[in-house]
Amino acid sequence: MIGKFIALEGGEGAGKSTNAQFIKQQLEARGLEVLLTREPGGTPLGEKVRAILLDTTLPAMTPTTEALLMFAARAEHYAQVIAPALAAGQWVISDRFVDASFAYQGAARGLGSNKIAELADWTLPNVQADLTLVFDLPVEVGMMRVQARGGVIDRFEQEPPAFFEQVRQAYLERAVKAPSHYCVLDASQDLSAVQRVIAEQLDRLCLG
Amino acid sequence: MIGKFIALEGGEGAGKSTNAQFIKQQLEARGLEVLLTREPGGTPLGEKVRAILLDTTLPAMTPTTEALLMFAARAEHYAQVIAPALAAGQWVISDRFVDASFAYQGAARGLGSNKIAELADWTLPNVQADLTLVFDLPVEVGMMRVQARGGVIDRFEQEPPAFFEQVRQAYLERAVKAPSHYCVLDASQDLSAVQRVIAEQLDRLCLG
Ligand SMILES: Nc1ncnc2c1ncn2[C@@H]1O[C@H](COP(=O)(O)OP(=O)(O)OP(=O)(O)O)[C@@H](O)[C@H]1O
Ligand SMILES: Nc1ncnc2c1ncn2[C@@H]1O[C@H](COP(=O)(O)OP(=O)(O)OP(=O)(O)O)[C@@H](O)[C@H]1O
Ligand SMILES: [Mg+2]
Ligand SMILES: [Mg+2]
Repeated sequence: MIGKFIALEGGEGAGKSTNAQFIKQQLEARGLEVLLTREPGGTPLGEKVRAILLDTTLPAMTPTTEALLMFAARAEHYAQVIAPALAAGQWVISDRFVDASFAYQGAARGLGSNKIAELADWTLPNVQADLTLVFDLPVEVGMMRVQARGGVIDRFEQEPPAFFEQVRQAYLERAVKAPSHYCVLDASQDLSAVQRVIAEQLDRLCLG
Repeated sequence: MIGKFIALEGGEGAGKSTNAQFIKQQLEARGLEVLLTREPGGTPLGEKVRAILLDTTLPAMTPTTEALLMFAARAEHYAQVIAPALAAGQWVISDRFVDASFAYQGAARGLGSNKIAELADWTLPNVQADLTLVFDLPVEVGMMRVQARGGVIDRFEQEPPAFFEQVRQAYLERAVKAPSHYCVLDASQDLSAVQRVIAEQLDRLCLG
């Protein structure tokens, strides 16, 4: 038996990490074995690469460098963690995956979606999440949530609102192109409303 | 005025780092401004990536991950160091460059030269050293030199002789395909003989 792979995407403060926990509980309540992981990171090597990517003290890296580092961590994450878990019948929830590179490096950093598609094909040919949940909300709402949450600001969170507008639009464009693999959630609703929609999507996925 | 770009390639202990210094002196004696740099590394970010690549305590990474990390460090190195120096009229000597990925990740790790060519085109379209010096010598001679030199053994140096045979053959194949950009040196000769050949090559490059 092969498990299913759910990716959580969306801008800063959209509720990915909060709902990753909720999804895990929902699936476990259905008797499924669940692995919850995140990007960039998810492996010892990936966490070292994550530290480089989020480091605000390094000189600015080029978008090309940023994309290659993201895919290096992702290659390792997929090969060492995600693929083996799926093959063992576990369900996998990843807090961000390939679409984040279309949104951040492709759109907001300006590399373009063709370049990201080429790198995705090079790194992970034919890999696609069974369901990508896009947590969509106005940029300023996400920013207020991040501020309210507190903690250290990383290299991406320093970017201006226009950057995150591009991130948001890119996610919506990705979802439109392959609607059967995506669900765009209105993440500005209160948490219980968001989670009702998530639960419906999980019902659908468990049947499919 | 645009400077020229010399890459030094070859297996472990072939004499790249020793002769990088010699080449720098030779070019400076001709009144040229010279930048000497190395891969993986050459930038603050690249040195952090280098530490990951050479770390013997991390679990084995996939060849795909290794190639992406190498090209991430290289993208940064080229954009932030090599290209600006060349544009400012400096000559640049790099202790390893793109060919090292054909040899190590493409051949010895088994990704294949097509995959490396794709990644090289993705990362650095139309970038090519003016001269690549390939320090060629029998694997066991290089290994003895490394042992005599002493120091810590890194993640690559741990590999068996068959790995370095593939590295050696891949460099020779690269050189055969574009002879006007390569010079294969018999690095098993004594240092003064190697340096006579290098000096001839530099004369040719300075005239060209
Ligand atoms: N629907 C919601 N309504 C109100 N607050 C929410 C909602 N969803 C999440 N939050 C809160 O917003 C903050 C950000 O949520 P969370 O950390 O889950 O977002 P994220 O998408 O993981 O962000 P990041 O991209 O920074 O990792 C948290 O404090 C969380 O409790
Ligand atoms: N032609 C030569 N004859 C004898 N010894 C040499 C010669 N060239 C270099 N050596 C010695 O061999 C050792 C390895 O040389 P060097 O460090 O320059 O190689 P390298 O190609 O940079 O190796 P690495 O791939 O490990 O960085 C050094 O101790 C150096 O002094
Ligand atoms: Mg989060
Ligand atoms: Mg050396």
